[in-house]
Amino acid sequence: MVPPGTVPAGSTLPMLSWACLPQYMNWLVWMPSVVMNISVCFLKRLKRSQLKVRFCTNESQKSRGDLVGMLRRLGFDISEGEVTAPAPAACLILKERGLRPHLLIHDGVRSEFDQIDTSNPNCVVIADAGEGFSYQNMNKAFQVLMELENPVLFSLGKGRYYKETSGLMLDVGPYTKALEYACGIEAEVVGKPSPEFFKSALWEMRVEAHQAIMIGDDIVGDVSGAQRCGMRALQVRTGKFRPSDEHHPEVKADGYVDNLAEAVDLLLQHADK
Amino acid sequence: MVPPGTVPAGSTLPMLSWACLPQYMNWLVWMPSVVMNISVCFLKRLKRSQLKVRFCTNESQKSRGDLVGMLRRLGFDISEGEVTAPAPAACLILKERGLRPHLLIHDGVRSEFDQIDTSNPNCVVIADAGEGFSYQNMNKAFQVLMELENPVLFSLGKGRYYKETSGLMLDVGPYTKALEYACGIEAEVVGKPSPEFFKSALWEMRVEAHQAIMIGDDIVGDVSGAQRCGMRALQVRTGKFRPSDEHHPEVKADGYVDNLAEAVDLLLQHADK
Repeated sequence: MVPPGTVPAGSTLPMLSWACLPQYMNWLVWMPSVVMNISVCFLKRLKRSQLKVRFCTNESQKSRGDLVGMLRRLGFDISEGEVTAPAPAACLILKERGLRPHLLIHDGVRSEFDQIDTSNPNCVVIADAGEGFSYQNMNKAFQVLMELENPVLFSLGKGRYYKETSGLMLDVGPYTKALEYACGIEAEVVGKPSPEFFKSALWEMRVEAHQAIMIGDDIVGDVSGAQRCGMRALQVRTGKFRPSDEHHPEVKADGYVDNLAEAVDLLLQHADK
Repeated sequence: MVPPGTVPAGSTLPMLSWACLPQYMNWLVWMPSVVMNISVCFLKRLKRSQLKVRFCTNESQKSRGDLVGMLRRLGFDISEGEVTAPAPAACLILKERGLRPHLLIHDGVRSEFDQIDTSNPNCVVIADAGEGFSYQNMNKAFQVLMELENPVLFSLGKGRYYKETSGLMLDVGPYTKALEYACGIEAEVVGKPSPEFFKSALWEMRVEAHQAIMIGDDIVGDVSGAQRCGMRALQVRTGKFRPSDEHHPEVKADGYVDNLAEAVDLLLQHADK
């Protein structure tokens, strides 16, 4: 049994990374990754404050509706409109560029693409398809790309793996690398750590990057991605955090907190001033 | 129906690349790739000469026995002892280094590993597993690697794709890239273009690299690999050959021939002198 309001260690809860805006009382909150025990009360405290909060996830196995539903059942006060996720972001790009994708995705997220024309595909969208990463499905995506004069591949995130109760599981990143190598191309990443993805979240909040702070547990996906788009970023020492992250050769967080509770305290202290 | 002695275009015939030794009447012959129509007579002419001939393949879906059986049924005069292939080469390395592999391979090649201890694995061997590249099997190999303190991954070849009658098919290379990215490691390649692999073929022929010439259709797998181990290499303008290969930024073949017939003529002319 999962106590309400608690995310069980090793659950399939998606990337949760938190970001916030310390200026103008604007806050972005990103949902942090997996294995943290997060009580809903921290989120309630944030939301009760004057801070703007936003959730940013690389979840690509579920639609936003299903994701939010699951979190609400766990007790989180969250709505679809507060979530920035790769599939809807990809749909915007596809429409802007008039692209018709071949979808190598999980059935759980297919509904996000209901309004997208997938006939006669001129690009491929790959997401965390899980068991859908069969040889046949990978080969089909590969063949679609090889038939295009200018192959375009969108990858919803580029994570290496995630943790489930049954153990570590391959994420979309390795399969994206496979198609990149097979076709001699480079994928366009939609999701963290792409700065474009953080920008779209900021735009949805109507705040500037310098006004925002990201809180997350992934040194690359959360911290580096946010910093590269001009935000500050705190790393939480839980979940994906590894002690070696504090000596990462290329990425240096603007600060560290032991857990989300400490992060929320810190934010609210600053907000009170 | 396939006429005896002819390799049908688009067949599943494995990489055939030819190499030969122009000095001391020693010749290595590597079997060339796929879509060439090769008459057995060219091989017969070579074998009737005083030239030493050897076949080197990256085939990793079939055992040498099955491969040779198939070629003999097509009319080729060839025996198991004349073939250098990645699976037997990998077995030698595993034995030398006392490694026990987890095998992510095609059932057709499993018999090559009959004498190898696969209990309590301390490395992974990946080969062209075809339909065996399910998410579950990839994830199992990934988990084995992640549980090792020093993960060791052997890749039987690193080809991107090959051609079947049903279209282009993903080869082992993309899946190796996937595991490399997921685990943050680099695979040891057993097979072409690894210079170690060419060296083992030369050793089996008892000839030096400078005495040997490689004939193949793959600018990287055949030409570059052979040159990097000190051999000369001709590229055949059939099969995998692309006109752009003649302007490859890094690899320059020692010569080009339009087809295997021309290569054999050329070799025999030199041998006659």
